[in-house]
Amino acid sequence: MSAFVIWRFTLQNKAIILLSGGIDSATALAIATDRGYETYALTVDYGQRHKIELSSADLMAKHFKVCRHITLKLDLRAFGGSALTDNIEIPKGEPFSVNDFNIPSTYVPARNTIMLSMALSWSEVLGARHIFIGANAVDYSGYPDCRPEFIESFQSLANLATKDGVEGRHFTIEAPLISMSKAQIIQLGIKLGVDYSMTHSCYDPSKEGLSCGSCDSCLIRKNGFIEANYPDPTTYINKNG
Amino acid sequence: MSAFVIWRFTLQNKAIILLSGGIDSATALAIATDRGYETYALTVDYGQRHKIELSSADLMAKHFKVCRHITLKLDLRAFGGSALTDNIEIPKGEPFSVNDFNIPSTYVPARNTIMLSMALSWSEVLGARHIFIGANAVDYSGYPDCRPEFIESFQSLANLATKDGVEGRHFTIEAPLISMSKAQIIQLGIKLGVDYSMTHSCYDPSKEGLSCGSCDSCLIRKNGFIEANYPDPTTYINKNG
Repeated sequence: MSAFVIWRFTLQNKAIILLSGGIDSATALAIATDRGYETYALTVDYGQRHKIELSSADLMAKHFKVCRHITLKLDLRAFGGSALTDNIEIPKGEPFSVNDFNIPSTYVPARNTIMLSMALSWSEVLGARHIFIGANAVDYSGYPDCRPEFIESFQSLANLATKDGVEGRHFTIEAPLISMSKAQIIQLGIKLGVDYSMTHSCYDPSKEGLSCGSCDSCLIRKNGFIEANYPDPTTYINKNG
Repeated sequence: MSAFVIWRFTLQNKAIILLSGGIDSATALAIATDRGYETYALTVDYGQRHKIELSSADLMAKHFKVCRHITLKLDLRAFGGSALTDNIEIPKGEPFSVNDFNIPSTYVPARNTIMLSMALSWSEVLGARHIFIGANAVDYSGYPDCRPEFIESFQSLANLATKDGVEGRHFTIEAPLISMSKAQIIQLGIKLGVDYSMTHSCYDPSKEGLSCGSCDSCLIRKNGFIEANYPDPTTYINKNG
């Protein structure tokens, strides 16, 4: 094998995974690991109320033995505008569904664009060609930056925005969960060795880190485990769930 | 005038300007002000060696009486890969030109993508429809994220990535300097009231903040003032320039 081929292989073998600490990004990391990539995890501490998810991201990065895990601070509370970063009440009750076209107050303006941009920067430095994001269009149909057309558009941008892209070393944005239900994601993750007890979903946890059980994210999580026919390892404040 | 029309007018009247503290972004701010926008300035402290440009951005924001100026920290030194953030030597001597297709070591991977994403987030919260960036394809032809095709691609992305975009309240990425020479930018800025003594360009300033006079950015700046036939207000370490 020539040095050039080895170099190309090395470049193609690195992947960055946006790791939040929730079910989806943990599963995306499991998929990237299963596909044989040398994995690098990027977590963004953006001032989210549910900061406990950052420890879940740490646990997951260690569990899957990533080559490096960077947590970067970017305080989006400076802009406000979301229930996840601002003094806006977290909605409780029924989760939104694919039939609900109202974008929920937990939407953080341009969050996935910002995070993918940061991952793109690191990818170019590392020579990684693949960026994994756990975006999912089924449960979070209300979030504009979780749709396939957004992912495709970001990939086009990435290849215009960078030295690598311009010189023909293209980036691929991988969103392997985009069309899966939460139950399918959980079933796949379990096969691939995800320990979901390490993950965190709740938008409004108690000080001790217990999940509220009634925000959109908890409801989608609970429902996912029920449909996946797998015991939910989460500790909820209300033990009846 | 109906309440709806007033509301639409208010929305259309806000603009965010990416303000670095250099000649180009100062001029972009002057243009936005001249066009009658209510201006909001965003500066990113990304760990640049020439941190002194942040004070220039402060001065310029005050000079043009922006409604609000936010400086956000995002430490891109965590990724490295650029002479502006890493222990890579700043190139000195001849500036690169439009005929030079080598991307210089001062290129910061995906910097403009990251900054525009942050501006997009704030724009959506503010209801601002216009984002100004001082990108310039003439002097900085080597930077992939200073080209018109990058700006157009980001605008398409912005309108897919956001609640506002999806709901038909479109964003425009304004890059009014993209095809101008540095001399033309300086001449326009002077007409519009920019005090260039407040701006900073040098990539490798002394501890006291004096400009080196020989990095790419200093050379382009000096040349711009000569061609604009306007005295260069910069204090260089070597007084002979």
